[in-house]
Amino acid sequence: MSQRKKVAVIMGSDSDLPVVEKAIKQLKELDIPVEAHVMSAHRTPAQASTFAGSAKENGFGVIIAAAGKAAHLAGVLAAHTTLPVIGIPIKSSTLDGLDALLATVQMPGGIPVATVAIDGAQNAALLAAQILAVSDDQLAGRLAAMKQNMTEGVLQKDAALQAKVAEL
Amino acid sequence: MSQRKKVAVIMGSDSDLPVVEKAIKQLKELDIPVEAHVMSAHRTPAQASTFAGSAKENGFGVIIAAAGKAAHLAGVLAAHTTLPVIGIPIKSSTLDGLDALLATVQMPGGIPVATVAIDGAQNAALLAAQILAVSDDQLAGRLAAMKQNMTEGVLQKDAALQAKVAEL
Amino acid sequence: MSQRKKVAVIMGSDSDLPVVEKAIKQLKELDIPVEAHVMSAHRTPAQASTFAGSAKENGFGVIIAAAGKAAHLAGVLAAHTTLPVIGIPIKSSTLDGLDALLATVQMPGGIPVATVAIDGAQNAALLAAQILAVSDDQLAGRLAAMKQNMTEGVLQKDAALQAKVAEL
Amino acid sequence: MSQRKKVAVIMGSDSDLPVVEKAIKQLKELDIPVEAHVMSAHRTPAQASTFAGSAKENGFGVIIAAAGKAAHLAGVLAAHTTLPVIGIPIKSSTLDGLDALLATVQMPGGIPVATVAIDGAQNAALLAAQILAVSDDQLAGRLAAMKQNMTEGVLQKDAALQAKVAEL
Amino acid sequence: MSQRKKVAVIMGSDSDLPVVEKAIKQLKELDIPVEAHVMSAHRTPAQASTFAGSAKENGFGVIIAAAGKAAHLAGVLAAHTTLPVIGIPIKSSTLDGLDALLATVQMPGGIPVATVAIDGAQNAALLAAQILAVSDDQLAGRLAAMKQNMTEGVLQKDAALQAKVAEL
Amino acid sequence: MSQRKKVAVIMGSDSDLPVVEKAIKQLKELDIPVEAHVMSAHRTPAQASTFAGSAKENGFGVIIAAAGKAAHLAGVLAAHTTLPVIGIPIKSSTLDGLDALLATVQMPGGIPVATVAIDGAQNAALLAAQILAVSDDQLAGRLAAMKQNMTEGVLQKDAALQAKVAEL
Amino acid sequence: MSQRKKVAVIMGSDSDLPVVEKAIKQLKELDIPVEAHVMSAHRTPAQASTFAGSAKENGFGVIIAAAGKAAHLAGVLAAHTTLPVIGIPIKSSTLDGLDALLATVQMPGGIPVATVAIDGAQNAALLAAQILAVSDDQLAGRLAAMKQNMTEGVLQKDAALQAKVAEL
Amino acid sequence: MSQRKKVAVIMGSDSDLPVVEKAIKQLKELDIPVEAHVMSAHRTPAQASTFAGSAKENGFGVIIAAAGKAAHLAGVLAAHTTLPVIGIPIKSSTLDGLDALLATVQMPGGIPVATVAIDGAQNAALLAAQILAVSDDQLAGRLAAMKQNMTEGVLQKDAALQAKVAEL
Repeated sequence: MSQRKKVAVIMGSDSDLPVVEKAIKQLKELDIPVEAHVMSAHRTPAQASTFAGSAKENGFGVIIAAAGKAAHLAGVLAAHTTLPVIGIPIKSSTLDGLDALLATVQMPGGIPVATVAIDGAQNAALLAAQILAVSDDQLAGRLAAMKQNMTEGVLQKDAALQAKVAEL
Repeated sequence: MSQRKKVAVIMGSDSDLPVVEKAIKQLKELDIPVEAHVMSAHRTPAQASTFAGSAKENGFGVIIAAAGKAAHLAGVLAAHTTLPVIGIPIKSSTLDGLDALLATVQMPGGIPVATVAIDGAQNAALLAAQILAVSDDQLAGRLAAMKQNMTEGVLQKDAALQAKVAEL
Repeated sequence: MSQRKKVAVIMGSDSDLPVVEKAIKQLKELDIPVEAHVMSAHRTPAQASTFAGSAKENGFGVIIAAAGKAAHLAGVLAAHTTLPVIGIPIKSSTLDGLDALLATVQMPGGIPVATVAIDGAQNAALLAAQILAVSDDQLAGRLAAMKQNMTEGVLQKDAALQAKVAEL
Repeated sequence: MSQRKKVAVIMGSDSDLPVVEKAIKQLKELDIPVEAHVMSAHRTPAQASTFAGSAKENGFGVIIAAAGKAAHLAGVLAAHTTLPVIGIPIKSSTLDGLDALLATVQMPGGIPVATVAIDGAQNAALLAAQILAVSDDQLAGRLAAMKQNMTEGVLQKDAALQAKVAEL
Repeated sequence: MSQRKKVAVIMGSDSDLPVVEKAIKQLKELDIPVEAHVMSAHRTPAQASTFAGSAKENGFGVIIAAAGKAAHLAGVLAAHTTLPVIGIPIKSSTLDGLDALLATVQMPGGIPVATVAIDGAQNAALLAAQILAVSDDQLAGRLAAMKQNMTEGVLQKDAALQAKVAEL
Repeated sequence: MSQRKKVAVIMGSDSDLPVVEKAIKQLKELDIPVEAHVMSAHRTPAQASTFAGSAKENGFGVIIAAAGKAAHLAGVLAAHTTLPVIGIPIKSSTLDGLDALLATVQMPGGIPVATVAIDGAQNAALLAAQILAVSDDQLAGRLAAMKQNMTEGVLQKDAALQAKVAEL
Repeated sequence: MSQRKKVAVIMGSDSDLPVVEKAIKQLKELDIPVEAHVMSAHRTPAQASTFAGSAKENGFGVIIAAAGKAAHLAGVLAAHTTLPVIGIPIKSSTLDGLDALLATVQMPGGIPVATVAIDGAQNAALLAAQILAVSDDQLAGRLAAMKQNMTEGVLQKDAALQAKVAEL
Repeated sequence: MSQRKKVAVIMGSDSDLPVVEKAIKQLKELDIPVEAHVMSAHRTPAQASTFAGSAKENGFGVIIAAAGKAAHLAGVLAAHTTLPVIGIPIKSSTLDGLDALLATVQMPGGIPVATVAIDGAQNAALLAAQILAVSDDQLAGRLAAMKQNMTEGVLQKDAALQAKVAEL
């Protein structure tokens, strides 16, 4: 596994950790090496640019960026790399995350950001895993198994539902 | 190049082609093998499921799905594969694409869709290329060169702007 | 009553039960046979397709589908049946249900979903009952009686209001 | 066919006819008897109430109501009948139909309106047909055939796409 | 005062009373005779129509209508009277009142509803008072005095603010 | 009629005239004396304040104010008078009138603005007439007749519709 | 420092103080003289106009205005001065601050308001400081130092994050 | 005038010029030295950072930044300077400028962007002038004169309106 490329998980503020930690945990569960940082498009722009610009040579395969409000982080990182950048719009105290969603997904031509749902940290990790799995059959196998487990989980919940419904 | 994985470009309706063709052209320019289809989550669900379920074994590395209104296509394809699925929300006659954006990006946990901007077909292609380039240094090199060209294009436009501004 | 067609109540996640149970209870009160399931357009797509595709021959007359976020469930079920499909958009943690509403109601031509209000589970049940009552005069009579009771309930509340208002 | 229940298609203004005529045509194609009226919740409230209140005894099985802006028509008709009422929100000169959508779909408990997409007149007709088909096997057969034709239409468009894509 | 015309305060549900009571209290404070009712455009449409249709002859000068979700109440009352009808959109459990606002304000030509802010019950009462005051100089005088008091209240708050600000 | 109070129609910009003239024409048709002005909350604040502050003593009964974008005009006029102020939100080049609607209707407690639909100039005039008619039986009679004509107009359109529908 | 121009912080209601006090504190920390007032575009329009009209001659360099709902305060102040006016849209009980944002930012040509984020009081203060610092090198130096501290704060949080992530 | 600080007008794409040129012209009319550039937060991030980082020492007093979609330009420039940065959200082909507005205005604490209306280029220039005028009495005088002219322009339009209204 050690030759697997790393996934960077960058958050705009450490207050995003309660949401973002789902991404980190999911990556660890999949044995994908992960490195997490607090970096800000606005407060540490030089660090963010440098990190993204050297991410490929430093062994990263995918960058995940989580930010709220006028969420520029994913776009700013994407400006400095050709690695796929996944954006997680974070819901903050106003506008229910719509601001972060639009600021993350509506990127101009030439610089894509692969955007997931508002607060969709687990899906960001799974998307990163899917990206790495394009050339990693072992990881692809794990993802297929997870998918199968997920299906079985729903079937079990459906079975459990029957008793509850009978009592309504 | 022939061993490069293919990118599937699926559109929900052939009326989406004027937008989606930018993705197809961009992929061709990058020498990425592309296969395009009209498939509908609602009108040809069996074909869509079968296509997605066998895409990996048929040599695809990434699936791009474009749909408008209650855009279920990307999510339905993602349900049947562990390949990365990129969603392009298409603007249609009402609501300015907001319906397609939310129906594409707000996926539940477990099934990510990598969403790009409304009508963002070129970026969908570039994102697919970035994904393949994680394990394809030649492609990564081309993307880096494109990025450099893009920068130079802006610099030339900035130079050209000066004359126009002088006349204002 | 036993020859009455069944109503299926499908929810995308068992966490939707607190909302959806109002539909199940309302159907039971009207002596309409009901069968409830957890099924997901994304996590159990095969089960969902099979269920919808055979619902008519299995004695169902109407399908109710409840889902949140990028709510594809009703549309995916509708793709596999000519039975009327009623969609309940479920409010989840962001965007106040607008995402689920648009993803449920904005269906493309050919595949309708009869959408009710966000979290409108009781109305989904009543709409299913109205549909069955088109050819079931006894049920139509019960619905008319319910409507009359509803009117009387409002009149009683109006009477009760007078005392409260006098004290303001 | 003569014993088939009628579908009423009510529009709030005759300016809605260019959108609503798709519903009327679709119903006629399916040999469903249709009766169309201009009626307004605000300009002819008495006529609208009377029509809805006697629709069942006058041989109607479903009511379709199309209105724009603060679209009260479907709800007002639904207040006077236990027949299923289908609402078509009409896009008008401002707000892109969002006002009509919310005014149609967000009905309070007790009075459902089966809402279709903004300007979704064809789907309103198909939904009406699905409702009648619950107890009309011949109609159900026609709907199943239509669905099959729709699938084949997409497959043909997919075949036709291949030549266009080859030239890009 | 006894010859002053009455103001009707109609609410779609008795659950709206905590908001609407501000209107009732404000009217009472201004010595405007007020009559409050629970009436529903959908659950008691006949009562609502009759009430509005005879309001003028029953001594009312203005009707205030408060409703949430697909708020049809104000429009339905306005359809049956030429009295001014004031609409209060009520915020309910989803969409933050936007649905009720649009369903109240976006009335078609010919049937105006004088809409105030979401949950703006006090302003509805003041607007009703302003309407009556057009031909009631005593009431106009009270409103002018209230306005003056309001100004003085702000000036006092401004004075009180200075101490708080000094401590920051 | 000469003793009837005047209605002021204030527009924020003369570019609003194509919308606002419907209000002026409607008032003239009803023999209500009207005075129209271009005044701006931002460009001529002193004139606007003075006008509103002296409107009552100058013989006005109602003020109508039309403005787009951050539409402050109605609110600013309302701050200086106890006359009823009716706001018409004007749709401008972006946001489809939503900005003007919210800036007009969401007034704070104490200063109501009676808001009509976006671009709803005719309804603003009718609302002004309804307000004056509270104490003007002749005007009330004309409004009732207009309402009756409106009903008959819809009935005629319904009759005319039948031929068109027969040909579909 | 005493020759530095003052910043006025005007709030539409004293209930805005919990948000607005961040602006006042930030200005004090930067040794910028600040004067705070409760003033309302609607309740104390004369005071607001007078204050803004004489602010420049009274030694103010910048005005900050905070208001919620149909937030006219910043625009009304801007109408009476050529000083830069900064608007803080305040989130209130409905619509999540979108109403205040649009009512503050969408100003017509000629009268700008420098709008910051919803509830963005600290940024309003920093923007005021940046404006004063255009001609105040000492203040510019403090802002540059603050920016540097902010960067270092993020770097420390990044360092602190590493331990937390290791435990996930 | 030669010692006046310069205003930079940065646009994300040369396609923004038709909107942005109003800012440039307005600044020139006010004899404010202006320098315009095409620079992109995403395509020329290094140039943008360098420009902003050295703008103060290069004689700029204010930076204006115009961008559409996920408009990061103003925020990215603001990250590298303590000069006031004014953001103009540009309306592009979808979402009517709401995406650019939210991406520009909803900046996190510490890095303000002074946001004007969507496509509000003239106001951006006036705001820049107001900022420079804080320490430039001659410029302040010109702005006051402009304001007076604007008032007179409205008064003339009001006079011209009277003839048009008489003919309605």
